[in-house]
Amino acid sequence: MPAQSAERMNPLLREIRHNPLLWLLAFVPVVFAAAKLKPEAHTLLFVLSVLAIVPLAALLSHATESVAAKTGDAAGGLLNATLGNLTELVIALTALKAGQYMLVKASIAGAIVTNTLFMLGASFLLGGLKHHVQEFNRAGARLQAGLLFLATVALLIPSAIATADSTTKAAFSQTLSLGLAVLLIAAYGLGMLFSLKTHRELFASAAHAEEGEAPWPMGLALATLAGVTVLVALVSEIFVESVQKAAEAFGMSPAFVGFIVVALVGGAAEMASAFSGARKDRLDLSVGIALGSASQIALFVAPVLVLLSYVIGPTPMDLHLWPGAVVMMLIATLTASFVTNSGRSAWFVGALLLMVYLVFAMTLYLLPPQVQ
Amino acid sequence: MPAQSAERMNPLLREIRHNPLLWLLAFVPVVFAAAKLKPEAHTLLFVLSVLAIVPLAALLSHATESVAAKTGDAAGGLLNATLGNLTELVIALTALKAGQYMLVKASIAGAIVTNTLFMLGASFLLGGLKHHVQEFNRAGARLQAGLLFLATVALLIPSAIATADSTTKAAFSQTLSLGLAVLLIAAYGLGMLFSLKTHRELFASAAHAEEGEAPWPMGLALATLAGVTVLVALVSEIFVESVQKAAEAFGMSPAFVGFIVVALVGGAAEMASAFSGARKDRLDLSVGIALGSASQIALFVAPVLVLLSYVIGPTPMDLHLWPGAVVMMLIATLTASFVTNSGRSAWFVGALLLMVYLVFAMTLYLLPPQVQ
Amino acid sequence: MPAQSAERMNPLLREIRHNPLLWLLAFVPVVFAAAKLKPEAHTLLFVLSVLAIVPLAALLSHATESVAAKTGDAAGGLLNATLGNLTELVIALTALKAGQYMLVKASIAGAIVTNTLFMLGASFLLGGLKHHVQEFNRAGARLQAGLLFLATVALLIPSAIATADSTTKAAFSQTLSLGLAVLLIAAYGLGMLFSLKTHRELFASAAHAEEGEAPWPMGLALATLAGVTVLVALVSEIFVESVQKAAEAFGMSPAFVGFIVVALVGGAAEMASAFSGARKDRLDLSVGIALGSASQIALFVAPVLVLLSYVIGPTPMDLHLWPGAVVMMLIATLTASFVTNSGRSAWFVGALLLMVYLVFAMTLYLLPPQVQ
Repeated sequence: MPAQSAERMNPLLREIRHNPLLWLLAFVPVVFAAAKLKPEAHTLLFVLSVLAIVPLAALLSHATESVAAKTGDAAGGLLNATLGNLTELVIALTALKAGQYMLVKASIAGAIVTNTLFMLGASFLLGGLKHHVQEFNRAGARLQAGLLFLATVALLIPSAIATADSTTKAAFSQTLSLGLAVLLIAAYGLGMLFSLKTHRELFASAAHAEEGEAPWPMGLALATLAGVTVLVALVSEIFVESVQKAAEAFGMSPAFVGFIVVALVGGAAEMASAFSGARKDRLDLSVGIALGSASQIALFVAPVLVLLSYVIGPTPMDLHLWPGAVVMMLIATLTASFVTNSGRSAWFVGALLLMVYLVFAMTLYLLPPQVQ
Repeated sequence: MPAQSAERMNPLLREIRHNPLLWLLAFVPVVFAAAKLKPEAHTLLFVLSVLAIVPLAALLSHATESVAAKTGDAAGGLLNATLGNLTELVIALTALKAGQYMLVKASIAGAIVTNTLFMLGASFLLGGLKHHVQEFNRAGARLQAGLLFLATVALLIPSAIATADSTTKAAFSQTLSLGLAVLLIAAYGLGMLFSLKTHRELFASAAHAEEGEAPWPMGLALATLAGVTVLVALVSEIFVESVQKAAEAFGMSPAFVGFIVVALVGGAAEMASAFSGARKDRLDLSVGIALGSASQIALFVAPVLVLLSYVIGPTPMDLHLWPGAVVMMLIATLTASFVTNSGRSAWFVGALLLMVYLVFAMTLYLLPPQVQ
Repeated sequence: MPAQSAERMNPLLREIRHNPLLWLLAFVPVVFAAAKLKPEAHTLLFVLSVLAIVPLAALLSHATESVAAKTGDAAGGLLNATLGNLTELVIALTALKAGQYMLVKASIAGAIVTNTLFMLGASFLLGGLKHHVQEFNRAGARLQAGLLFLATVALLIPSAIATADSTTKAAFSQTLSLGLAVLLIAAYGLGMLFSLKTHRELFASAAHAEEGEAPWPMGLALATLAGVTVLVALVSEIFVESVQKAAEAFGMSPAFVGFIVVALVGGAAEMASAFSGARKDRLDLSVGIALGSASQIALFVAPVLVLLSYVIGPTPMDLHLWPGAVVMMLIATLTASFVTNSGRSAWFVGALLLMVYLVFAMTLYLLPPQVQ
């Protein structure tokens, strides 16, 4: 019977057959070919690399979850928490190696804002259009909002003090960024200790979220993880090289590209999961993905990039963002924590979050180019 | 019997006889006469126009409610939501036509701050002095606070980004204001759709608020609406002309006039309703009027003024406020949303809101004149 | 029997015998001797004066509570509310007399931030390490957070408006500070009226907090109060003189000294009580001490210092803080009000508060010296 033969098929091929998103994998060889043949066609390369990254990110995220599911709760949670944003990390590392620090920083801030406003908002809206009122576990949302708030404060305070008193000593900013990076990673670790170990019963419903999908065998998952990470890194190089020039061709400001475009591309796979969870009235899952991903980028990816910049970057990178980005992060964090505070949602809450995101996007799109 | 004859009397005359506030209508002819006879007596004209606007605003608001009551729930809600701040709109339009954009913007920001802090605070205080602890429906307060928050973000982000990076390109600001105006009106419309249509059951107790007063017949209400609007427009012209000069005579800064005086005059009629609701332990009504009016001004009156400035103003008006005004709006919105979050109130909550308002008023009163 | 003889002993001596903290009283004569013999040994004098102030503050606080316990609820509450931060007040008065206004202001802002983040955070952490989840009365926390928010607004608005528009007229700032000082004291008074009189039943569990310790007889308490206040004043003079020079020797920025060191020294005694309450699962007590102390400093100590500066200072002091300090106060207040909103706590909440405090401390420690 075809159904049985499908079950006996390689799970990777089966996944690809059932998930139309993965058909985009066809663009992976195409983008490599195009980069060889037409290295100057920036707009084409940009579009092709976006189309190639999205399915790779989806594979990466499925492979991570499969390894996590096999290694048991605590280790699995740890793995998910460190590799869950591998795509964003690889893209940012590529930009870091190329010395494009503004792009790295904008994409970090943008990923946080996009996850808390767009991913969360669209989940609430899509879920709310199908279900009248939806409920979710507040404990997880509160934990992530608390961590995000800490990260925002860590990014805000140096800017606030340095700007306000107009003495941005590079050395001050550098040392402080190093200290804050260590502090944020420590806070992230404590957050995991709290939610996976000492008080795991509070976060119950979010834990067995992915139960529906069967995990892959360990060998396949690990091989996929390794192989796809290399592919993402290679495609990211093409993406990072082409994105700024392509943006100019589309008439986008550099701030808009880093903040909105890169963040949407990097998070596409997670968005697919979050939205599908919301439609199935499993809002715990959506909220967990959206806020968990945002806090992971703020407290793990960003500090790791600062630390790695000492090793692989041309010069060390600090955590000093432009003031507008910090204000947006602060507003996004406050909004998310107000909105998730009640543990209930309806479509209008999602619409409101999307509107706030739209205000940001519009402002960045219209921003004169010399700002950033 | 006198009671029966009173019932058979014209409802407009009856209303005037029973409502001492409306005796101030006598000042309407007086202010027109004074404007003809003594066009240079700015202080006198200012005082007279204030005394004339207050009862006109009360009539306007009663007429709007009567039409709304007759046209049924959804259409009535829509009407109340668009014409509820007709007085503020007419005053602002008069100032817009005169090209006094600073006065328009200050009166918008001031109306939002005055409604969320003074009107809400005085309602809580007056209600709390009579009742030990009062409860109200949080759903309505949360919706309005959410809308207000969005409006504050829309006003904050352009200022934050333009100020922080000191590139206030007029064109950028202009295009962005237009986009934001459309966005805010759309959000306001979605909010009405949510509260009047898809999730109306959440906002139940606030709905049949005005049940105590008998609505006027349709013809009378429409005639009053039309006639009084014209009168308000005429008196507003005298008010707008005299207010700045009168303020100087009283030693008030221009910022204080726009923010505090105009806002209190424009909202006097609504305040009367809100305070009387609070005394009768119908705090849903008070909170609804205060926050509803604030969000209506932020998401309907202000954007409409921006759009109308292309038609009737000397030049297009943008939404760019001075930073101090945005900070006050942000604080007012945050305060209102903290305070209404619990759905309970006692006199001290009102006192606290009034204190915050007093901090603003004191600062603006003492502000050196060149600022604004 | 020794136990009985101990009970018949002078309660002051008994207290000293049982409380190892009070053994530090030995440093009081030592610091006076050192100041006479080695007036230039700033680092030594600084360390000795810190060691002497801590036990004196503990005595002062016990004496105040004893008088309060004897005089009945309302008068006692009033006394506790005015003399509870006598140590901070005396230190600040000494700095005020010496014209060190930056130190005064930094220590006020620092005390507020230290109480809301460090004292509250360490209480939650220490309590949470022993008890899985702890609960506390939200009413008290909400009241104090509301008062703190008002104080933050009062400090923020003048800075925001003056900075934003870059017209800091000294006269404006001076008059405004006077007005705000009166307003804050009035708000503090209303808060006491609310919590001790009209709505005391809401704050029940925090009231009989100190029941465990037997109060001293009235005469002893009053004598201790008077005598120890004089001692604190004398030691404070040595402390204020030596602190800046000692800080340089330790490589600390002046902002770090005022904000962190002075605040920790001044609040050491209260911290001991708050931490011990948390370990005993009486978190009401800890939250009450931490937030109550912060709001007392913001709404009583700070305004009183402004008013007294007209009498004893070289020139009047205003309430104008440097922007970074206001931002830290605002974040501390918002954090405290988010965190206490649920009325529940676990160790991670404390860790998060301490992390935010650590971000501030790190930034201030690394701050280049010319800033402040």
